[in-house]
Amino acid sequence: MPQQRSVETRGRILDAAVRKFAIAGYDAATVDDICAEAGVSKGAFYHHFPTKQAIFLALMQGWLGMIDMGMEAVRAESVPQTLIKMTDLLPGVFAAAEDRLPMFLEFWMQASRDEKVWKAMIAPYRHYQEHFARLVEEGITEGSLKPTTDAQVAAQVIVSLAVGLVLQGVLDPRGADWEKTARESMKILMNGLAS
Amino acid sequence: MPQQRSVETRGRILDAAVRKFAIAGYDAATVDDICAEAGVSKGAFYHHFPTKQAIFLALMQGWLGMIDMGMEAVRAESVPQTLIKMTDLLPGVFAAAEDRLPMFLEFWMQASRDEKVWKAMIAPYRHYQEHFARLVEEGITEGSLKPTTDAQVAAQVIVSLAVGLVLQGVLDPRGADWEKTARESMKILMNGLAS
Repeated sequence: MPQQRSVETRGRILDAAVRKFAIAGYDAATVDDICAEAGVSKGAFYHHFPTKQAIFLALMQGWLGMIDMGMEAVRAESVPQTLIKMTDLLPGVFAAAEDRLPMFLEFWMQASRDEKVWKAMIAPYRHYQEHFARLVEEGITEGSLKPTTDAQVAAQVIVSLAVGLVLQGVLDPRGADWEKTARESMKILMNGLAS
Repeated sequence: MPQQRSVETRGRILDAAVRKFAIAGYDAATVDDICAEAGVSKGAFYHHFPTKQAIFLALMQGWLGMIDMGMEAVRAESVPQTLIKMTDLLPGVFAAAEDRLPMFLEFWMQASRDEKVWKAMIAPYRHYQEHFARLVEEGITEGSLKPTTDAQVAAQVIVSLAVGLVLQGVLDPRGADWEKTARESMKILMNGLAS
C-alpha cells in the first residue's frame, strides 16, 4: 500500500515539524532537523513539501480547516442557538493553539514580511467571516435577528471576538474561565442583535 | 540642562530601537545597531537601559500606557456612551500598532518563552480588564446596564473584542472598515447589556 505509506510519511513530517518549530522556532528549525525528527530522508521530505514554508502553510491550513469543519457541523434550532453552541468548539481550539502558539506567532511574523504567507493566513479568516455573514442573514430571514442587522459587520464582530478570545485564552490561560467567557460573550452579542 | 538632555537621549534610543526591531527583528537587532541608529554611545545606552530586553519592555509599557491614559480620559453622559466613544481611540491604536506589529509579535513570542516578559505583557491587559469592570459596575449602578450583568465577564468580552479588532485591523487593514466595525461592535454589545 504505497499510497497509505505516503500519507503516513506526510503525517510524520508534519508532526515532526510542529515539534521542531515549537522548540527551535521557524527560522532556526532546518529541513535536516525535521527529517531527523521524523525519521525520513530528505528525498521523502521534498517529495511531500517543496520548501520549509510549504510545510508551515500546510500546518496552518490544516488547523484552520479543522476549525472550519467543526463550525459547519454545528446546527441548532435557531441561528442564535447555533452560534452559542459553536462556542463549545473553543476548548479544542485552545488546546490545539496552546501547543502551537510559538509557531503561529512565527507565522504571523512571516506574514507581516511576506505577501504569500500573508495571503495564506488571511484567506481562512475571510472564509470564517463569510460563513458567519451567511448565518446572520439566515437569522434575519428566520426572524430571530433584527431585520436592520448589517450581516457583514455582525460577522466581523463575531470573528474579532473569537480571535481575541483565542489569543487571550492561549496567552493567559488562567486569567479567566475562557470557555464560560466565550459562551457568555456570544449570548450578549445575540441579545444585542435579537429582534 | 543635563536632565532634559537625558530625557532626549532616552527618547532617541527608544525611537532607534523601534526602527531596528521593526526592520531586523528583536533577536537580530543588537545594542550596537541601536546605538549607531540613535547616535549615542554604548555607555549612554546602558545608563538608560540595563539590557536589550529592558528597552523592549519600556516600549511595550509606553504604548500600552498611552492607551490606558486615553481610555481614562474618555467620559460621556452614560457608561454605554462612554464605551462607544472609546472606540474613537482605535484609529490611533491601529496606526501605532501597524508600525510596531513585527515588534509586538516578537514580544508575544518572547512572552511565550520567558516568564518575566509574559508577566510584563499580561499586566496591562489585566489592568484594562479592571478598568472596564469598574465602568460596567458604574453602568449597573446608574441603571443603564442590566442589574444581572456579570461585570467581570462583560469586561472580558470588551477586552477580547478590542484585542481581536486591533490584531485583525493591523494584519488585514483593507479587510474591513475597522473603525466602523469597532463602533458598531460596541453598540451591539451595549444593546446586549442594556437594562
